[in-house]
Amino acid sequence: MTRENLRINAERLLRRLDELGQIGALEGGGNCRLAFSDEDKAGRDIVLGWMRAAGLDIRIDRFGNVTATRPGREDGPPVMAGSHTDTVATGGKYDGNLGVLAGLEAIETLNDAGIETRRPVAVTLFSNEEGARFSPDMMGSLVYQGGLPLEEAYGIEGIDGSTVGENLERIGYIGDAPVGGNEVHAFVELHIEQGPILEDEGRTIGAVEGVQGISWTEYTFTGRSAHAGTTPMSRRCDAGYVAAEVAAYVRRLAAETGNGHVSTVGVFEVEPDLVNVVPQKAKITADLRNFDNELLKQAEQKLEAFVDDIAGREGAAVARRTLARFDPTPFDTGMVDRIHGIAERLGYSTRRIASGAGHDAQIMARICPTAMIFVPSVDGISHNIQEYTKPEDCEAGANVMLHTLLELAE
Amino acid sequence: MTRENLRINAERLLRRLDELGQIGALEGGGNCRLAFSDEDKAGRDIVLGWMRAAGLDIRIDRFGNVTATRPGREDGPPVMAGSHTDTVATGGKYDGNLGVLAGLEAIETLNDAGIETRRPVAVTLFSNEEGARFSPDMMGSLVYQGGLPLEEAYGIEGIDGSTVGENLERIGYIGDAPVGGNEVHAFVELHIEQGPILEDEGRTIGAVEGVQGISWTEYTFTGRSAHAGTTPMSRRCDAGYVAAEVAAYVRRLAAETGNGHVSTVGVFEVEPDLVNVVPQKAKITADLRNFDNELLKQAEQKLEAFVDDIAGREGAAVARRTLARFDPTPFDTGMVDRIHGIAERLGYSTRRIASGAGHDAQIMARICPTAMIFVPSVDGISHNIQEYTKPEDCEAGANVMLHTLLELAE
Repeated sequence: MTRENLRINAERLLRRLDELGQIGALEGGGNCRLAFSDEDKAGRDIVLGWMRAAGLDIRIDRFGNVTATRPGREDGPPVMAGSHTDTVATGGKYDGNLGVLAGLEAIETLNDAGIETRRPVAVTLFSNEEGARFSPDMMGSLVYQGGLPLEEAYGIEGIDGSTVGENLERIGYIGDAPVGGNEVHAFVELHIEQGPILEDEGRTIGAVEGVQGISWTEYTFTGRSAHAGTTPMSRRCDAGYVAAEVAAYVRRLAAETGNGHVSTVGVFEVEPDLVNVVPQKAKITADLRNFDNELLKQAEQKLEAFVDDIAGREGAAVARRTLARFDPTPFDTGMVDRIHGIAERLGYSTRRIASGAGHDAQIMARICPTAMIFVPSVDGISHNIQEYTKPEDCEAGANVMLHTLLELAE
Repeated sequence: MTRENLRINAERLLRRLDELGQIGALEGGGNCRLAFSDEDKAGRDIVLGWMRAAGLDIRIDRFGNVTATRPGREDGPPVMAGSHTDTVATGGKYDGNLGVLAGLEAIETLNDAGIETRRPVAVTLFSNEEGARFSPDMMGSLVYQGGLPLEEAYGIEGIDGSTVGENLERIGYIGDAPVGGNEVHAFVELHIEQGPILEDEGRTIGAVEGVQGISWTEYTFTGRSAHAGTTPMSRRCDAGYVAAEVAAYVRRLAAETGNGHVSTVGVFEVEPDLVNVVPQKAKITADLRNFDNELLKQAEQKLEAFVDDIAGREGAAVARRTLARFDPTPFDTGMVDRIHGIAERLGYSTRRIASGAGHDAQIMARICPTAMIFVPSVDGISHNIQEYTKPEDCEAGANVMLHTLLELAE
């Protein structure tokens, strides 16, 4: 078997996905393995067992990030795959898990074929990517990269009032290796798309060019509650009406902005929420995303202008709160080109794609050349027990991962 | 003193308003005397005491409606004033109470002046006008008029699960007089406007031409929840967006319809109500009111067409539920002219006006010539502990009531 013909062991990869998916399994499918829970520990333990059985060097850092390394002919920074095995409360069995297990599978494929690489090849399981129990998300990669001090991360309180530090200690995943200052030659993360684009277009592989910039703003409008029957329209100051006009504008803004811009009003609440009372208060959120930071900024400015105008005309007060703001993260173009080329060479239908969701890879992009491989999500569903990616697509993604690591390791 | 110069005793009227307002008094002002509660009973008791002290014939019917009558020179149907003394949970001390106490005050003024009338003059306190504890509103007048069978009304369950019948019995207000089949010569109700029109125009008296028609519809839109970052706009089926467009249209509809049309979206709820999830469900209510039934029907039809169009374009399902639908109730034009003329004669600034809220008078209009007298609500506020009507306006309304009853009783 030549290097070019090398393929991963799909049966082993899929079996492990199933086994991992049985830990914290939910009625009807999917998983609940919230970060640093007993289920998270059990998931980590089984993966760690496979890493050990593959003869890899295991390194666990002070924040529970697990790196398993296969040595190269030379020392020096490894080529690294990685993702996470924690889930949201109603998670699927592909999100995160696929990236970790495909990295491990690629390494075991090299073992099975007896292939030596110049550089070490590693796979990392990052702590708490989801942020569902302890905010922010991508916490493990952030600490690994050095963007969040360890002691600060330990002190973060979760939704149940306990801290990251006490839970990490409880599950026994505070390792000896220091955090920060890690040197990595290149990083690649395989992940499900979590959207419908690849499936819609009948493509198997997405070469991910980067992560969209995200802008989250909460608007609270204050008007004047009034009797819906006895208050003439000219006398109204209707907070719900202002919010509705803004929500309708947020949709128009997507078309106006272009470049794959998405924008969403996910929260809409009014007070007192009674059929015959003009709403005194309304709260909505605007979630704007674009891969181009200038376009994202333009969209933000246009929305602000619209909000000021419509609230001003109604005489309603506006309170704003920025909930999140991340610039877009473009990935390394050489890495993206490489993934695209490998996928084509292996015979998979491929396109370049932007990620609408956040991933550990966007943190790793701060310290080394980074890109991602996407595979299709059936119906675009994720963070849901119905999350599903076809076995042949998992296999395809892992094969692209294998050859990407192989090339980068030479 | 001639009949023309006759005026009510303002000091007595205002003192009684205050005394009644002390029963079920709320911190900061206002009252809570929910129908058939202990507070409602205490309020009825004090009014009944004043009626008895005035030497009137007391008649309590099987539904707790209390009629106090001053005999005329002839027998036959009385000229009647009336309203209610129950309140919403955060009621004011004028809504309802003013109409009952002004009717009583007018009768006592006749007593004090020793004036005989041809027809009997009566004042009625109707049970459960607000409908805040037991739905529907205007229940007492409806039973009095014969529009709601007594046994059916007894069986109605309230927000606390108990029934009207057991509560009426508990407070001791099931009287001997039958319900339905009542003959009344004419009915007039004094009430606060509950809106800002009289105050805005600096008028003291509104001659109420009728009650607006009311159309309440609840719309539930069902779309598809989706990831706000990874789902392209073209793939969305956003129930919240559809609801926002409908809410914005409901506002435009008011201007398009005219004739004082008011329309309100008071309820707006989305699911799952998360910043980064496209809403799967949205529920809103539309409250449309117009004094012209044809215009109200046109507005309903235009809204239906808009809802179908926008939901269809988004691919969202629509479920509709009619929560209420009342045709407009025009009052007797002779009665309206009479009230308008008397108010002018007494020197009060006057206008014709439509009622945006429902009142016992609209039920009484089914059995006799009926109209209403409005006095200004400061800032248009009602159903609120800040509800306020100036003493001189209460006095003016009661004087118009006095002369209206006097004329009708001859």
